[in-house]
Amino acid sequence: MSICEDFFSSNPQPTNYDILSNKIKDFCQLHKHDKVVLITSGGTAVPLERHTVRSLENFSQGTRGSSSAEYFLKSGYAVIFLYRLKSLEPFTRHFSDINIFDWLVVDNENESSQIKVGSQYVSTLLPILKKYKEVMNSGKLLSIPYISLSDYLWLLRAACNALSSLNGKALLYLAAAVSDFYIPLDKMPTHKIQSDNGAPNISLHLVPKILEPLVHSWVPNAYVVSFKLETNTSLLHSKARRALEKYHHKMVIGNILQTRKYQVIIVTENEDYDIVLSEEEKVQNVEIESKIVEYLCKKHDLFLNS
Amino acid sequence: MSICEDFFSSNPQPTNYDILSNKIKDFCQLHKHDKVVLITSGGTAVPLERHTVRSLENFSQGTRGSSSAEYFLKSGYAVIFLYRLKSLEPFTRHFSDINIFDWLVVDNENESSQIKVGSQYVSTLLPILKKYKEVMNSGKLLSIPYISLSDYLWLLRAACNALSSLNGKALLYLAAAVSDFYIPLDKMPTHKIQSDNGAPNISLHLVPKILEPLVHSWVPNAYVVSFKLETNTSLLHSKARRALEKYHHKMVIGNILQTRKYQVIIVTENEDYDIVLSEEEKVQNVEIESKIVEYLCKKHDLFLNS
Repeated sequence: MSICEDFFSSNPQPTNYDILSNKIKDFCQLHKHDKVVLITSGGTAVPLERHTVRSLENFSQGTRGSSSAEYFLKSGYAVIFLYRLKSLEPFTRHFSDINIFDWLVVDNENESSQIKVGSQYVSTLLPILKKYKEVMNSGKLLSIPYISLSDYLWLLRAACNALSSLNGKALLYLAAAVSDFYIPLDKMPTHKIQSDNGAPNISLHLVPKILEPLVHSWVPNAYVVSFKLETNTSLLHSKARRALEKYHHKMVIGNILQTRKYQVIIVTENEDYDIVLSEEEKVQNVEIESKIVEYLCKKHDLFLNS
Repeated sequence: MSICEDFFSSNPQPTNYDILSNKIKDFCQLHKHDKVVLITSGGTAVPLERHTVRSLENFSQGTRGSSSAEYFLKSGYAVIFLYRLKSLEPFTRHFSDINIFDWLVVDNENESSQIKVGSQYVSTLLPILKKYKEVMNSGKLLSIPYISLSDYLWLLRAACNALSSLNGKALLYLAAAVSDFYIPLDKMPTHKIQSDNGAPNISLHLVPKILEPLVHSWVPNAYVVSFKLETNTSLLHSKARRALEKYHHKMVIGNILQTRKYQVIIVTENEDYDIVLSEEEKVQNVEIESKIVEYLCKKHDLFLNS
């Protein structure tokens, strides 16, 4: 049994697995003539105890994934958004820092009470709310939440199974910040780790490299894009290139934690390509995801027409 | 230098420390004749790298803290709500699982567009929204967000400094799930831990027991309540009692992860007291925090009148 298969056989399915995987299947069936992108977004939780009080988290608010989802929708894709519960989601992300209660006012003018958005906020909210309603009415966005690493991997595989029949029309945009490390169930203490005997050493294990079976077995004909996040600039390009050479997928998008909102490098088999926001674009609040998605859509179309 | 002082001198203040600690100071000044409760709520993030990609998290959605805040406000307390950013907050917590965009409708009947809450949702939202508006108008709720363990401890100390002049009228309700472990800055790698050389061992260190200086130096006259969360029922009572005997504060509220919504034990110097929801109360969606806060308010009044 491969290391990946071993992971699935020793980590149980998420409790609502059948419901969620059926939703994904139905969505892919409905959009079988469309271009469909699977976007993964947000971090993963790796439990350190079976009755979990503590977990290891990868940093991600889901900015890249949720913002890219909007641009893919705008470009006509149907979007499966596999995201960490409570991380940013398309459209609502623009208001994640406000308390919506502060924007609501109670209107007692009529006989029955009404609750309205304060008139001073309408112009900010309206265009985004309208786009959200359009997208939801079109049925082109399916959001699937996960929390733990294990749930993520189960749902990723389910999505790949459903997407495989779309062949090249399926685009995988693996932007989630997935843990490289975890503790296998059989090595995990049952109860909360106690602090009475001093601080523990936590022995982590490597998460199986899921990109290997994903590219070669699960969706062998899809257009697969992975991400590489580093904090050390000198490692980024070589690690991105090495990942592409190892898994033979279509593209690696590399970014540095500190500059990820302004700068990414794109590595394909034949090309290195940098996307950098100009000072003017920064001032205009251009989102780098608009440029990443634009570039990617072109590449995907070229691939489909080749 | 004590271990706690050492922690503060080796972990820098949060960036907005001065603004937040002044807000707390002003709030305590404004409410110097009131009973004021400091509620801490939600988990803490412990970074594993200086440029942080990974962190250790304590599980907490902030249910206990955010719900208790509402009951303290109802009982006339002014509330400082020191909470983990993005964890549950009073009032909005009731709608944390819904996407508010699904509840909003665009109304084009008039010349200018309006955005309203759909009429079918008004009866659910209205009573809670009204309570929120009342509370915000009364100026009795101050919410202060944190993310990391270090930020939490800095702001906790700032709040204690501001509360100390209130003496016994200050109640501390330390419900946050604070990490027992961390990695000191000088032992922390600068960059993202690499997975090329296999999985790492993470050596954790003990977080200084902040309750010690808090009870004896920071707010020696306040009514201090701490929480103890365990997953193993057989440990809970003895650990709660031991904490009380060690720090000599007023109360420990103990709970088991799996049953925390229905059952807590309360340990004071002279008494053990259990709060357990009846089957009928569970059916009626009684929140156990209503009973915890009711009990605590009585005890606090007895203490103030003694």
